[in-house]
Amino acid sequence: MIDALFLDLSGVLYDGETLIPGAREAVERVQRSDLELRFVTNTSQRTRADLLQHLHDLGFTVQDQQLFTAVDAARQWLLERRLRPFCLVHENILSEFADMDQNNPNAVFIADAVDGFNYRNLNRAFQVCQAGAPLLGVGTNRYYKSGDELLMDVGGFIRAVEFAAGVEATIVGKPSAEFFRLVLASTSSTPERTMMVGDDVFGDVEGALRAGIGACLVRTGKYQPGDEQRIEGEFQLVDSIEGAVDYALS
Amino acid sequence: MIDALFLDLSGVLYDGETLIPGAREAVERVQRSDLELRFVTNTSQRTRADLLQHLHDLGFTVQDQQLFTAVDAARQWLLERRLRPFCLVHENILSEFADMDQNNPNAVFIADAVDGFNYRNLNRAFQVCQAGAPLLGVGTNRYYKSGDELLMDVGGFIRAVEFAAGVEATIVGKPSAEFFRLVLASTSSTPERTMMVGDDVFGDVEGALRAGIGACLVRTGKYQPGDEQRIEGEFQLVDSIEGAVDYALS
Repeated sequence: MIDALFLDLSGVLYDGETLIPGAREAVERVQRSDLELRFVTNTSQRTRADLLQHLHDLGFTVQDQQLFTAVDAARQWLLERRLRPFCLVHENILSEFADMDQNNPNAVFIADAVDGFNYRNLNRAFQVCQAGAPLLGVGTNRYYKSGDELLMDVGGFIRAVEFAAGVEATIVGKPSAEFFRLVLASTSSTPERTMMVGDDVFGDVEGALRAGIGACLVRTGKYQPGDEQRIEGEFQLVDSIEGAVDYALS
Repeated sequence: MIDALFLDLSGVLYDGETLIPGAREAVERVQRSDLELRFVTNTSQRTRADLLQHLHDLGFTVQDQQLFTAVDAARQWLLERRLRPFCLVHENILSEFADMDQNNPNAVFIADAVDGFNYRNLNRAFQVCQAGAPLLGVGTNRYYKSGDELLMDVGGFIRAVEFAAGVEATIVGKPSAEFFRLVLASTSSTPERTMMVGDDVFGDVEGALRAGIGACLVRTGKYQPGDEQRIEGEFQLVDSIEGAVDYALS
C-alpha cells in the first residue's frame, strides 16, 4: 500500500525537451487518485520558476508546493547559518542566490555548473574549503543522459574539491536522507507507505532506501542495463513511469 | 646508513623560479659523497628537456639518467600496451605524446592540465572511461604551492573522473610503489638503505614508506604544520633539504 509517490524529473518524466512516452498520462492517473504526489529533483541548471514553467510546457500540472529541489535546500541551509557562499553553479541559477552576501566567502556550494567547471572556479572552491569553510554539494549524481549521450554530472566535481581540500561535503539533495525526510514531512504518509521513482540507482533508489522509503527504478533516462545490481536492498524495477504508477496504484 | 637518496623537485629544491635556500649546496654535498642520487618528480607542466634545463638554470647539475618523471612512466605504460590515449595534459607536454596515435582513444591519461581542466575535457575523459578504457593518472597530489598560494593539483581531477565513470585509476607516478621500485632498480641500493626526500606527506613520504623505502619530510614547499601527523609510519622530519642531507650523510 502506497500513500505518497515521489517522482524524479529528468529521465522519468522527460529527457531534455522530449517527453518520456506515457509520462503525462501516468502523472494524471496519480493526480486522479488519493496518492499524495511530490516532484523531487537535484536539477540545478534551471531556477525553480523555470523548472515549473518547463513542466507546464511539457503538459504537467504541478503545484508550487509539490516541487522540492536540492537548490532550495541549499538556499535554506546557507540562510539558516547566515553564510556567505561561493556559488559554483550554473549561470542560469545565480539569481537564486543574488540576495546573499557572497563577498569574502565562508562557504562553498557546488551545483551543476557545466561550463563553470573550469580550473579557476574549482581551484577557488578548493582554496575556500582549504581555509576551513564548509562544502555544500547539490547531489552525488555521477552522470546524466542528454539525447544519446551520457554526460558527467556534479558528483565528480564535488569529489574533486573534497579530495583536494581534505573535507567531506554536506549533500543537500538526493541521496541525502535529510532531503527525503524534508519531502516526506510535507505529506501525511510514512516512509514505508511512500515510494520514490527515479532513473538513478544511487541518488534516487539507494538514497530513498537509506531513508527507509520504498523505491522504484525505471529503465528510462540514464538507466543502464545492470544498474539494478549495483546496490543492495529491495526495490521495484519497471520499464518506465507507467509501470511505477501501475504498481503504486495496485 | 643510506646508499641512495631520492629528491623531489618542486618544494624541495625550488618553489617556482626561486631556489630554496641551501638547496644547491646540499645537492652538491651529496654529489661529492658516495650516495647515489636520483631526482623523482610528478611534475607534468614541463617536458623532460625543459625540466632538465630549468634545473640547470637554477644551478643544479643533473644527469639525464638521474631524472625520473611520472610523465615518462605514463609514456612507457601506454607504449607497452599500444594504447591510443586521450591525453588530458598541459599544453606544454603535448609534444611528449605526439608520436602516439590519439584518434578514437582507448585510454585516458590525466596529468596537471591546469587550464585544460574544463568541463569539455573532463567530460570527454569520463566518456572514454565509461566506455571501458583504462584511466591513467600522473599522481595523487592534492595541492601544490606557488608563491604564497596553495593551488589545486591533479589528484582531485583524477578522483572526479574515477567517481563519475566508476573506475579506479592506475597511478604511474608517486605514490605508486611501482614507480619507486623503478627508480630504485636504477641504483645498486636496497629499499632500507634508500631515502626519499619530499614536501608532500602523502605522495613522497607515505608512498616511499609503502614501497619499503625510508622517507624524510621537509618543512618547505607545500608543507603545512601538522602534515607529519596525517600519516602512519616512521620517517624523518627536517626544516629543509639541508637537514635531510645532514641526516643522509651522518
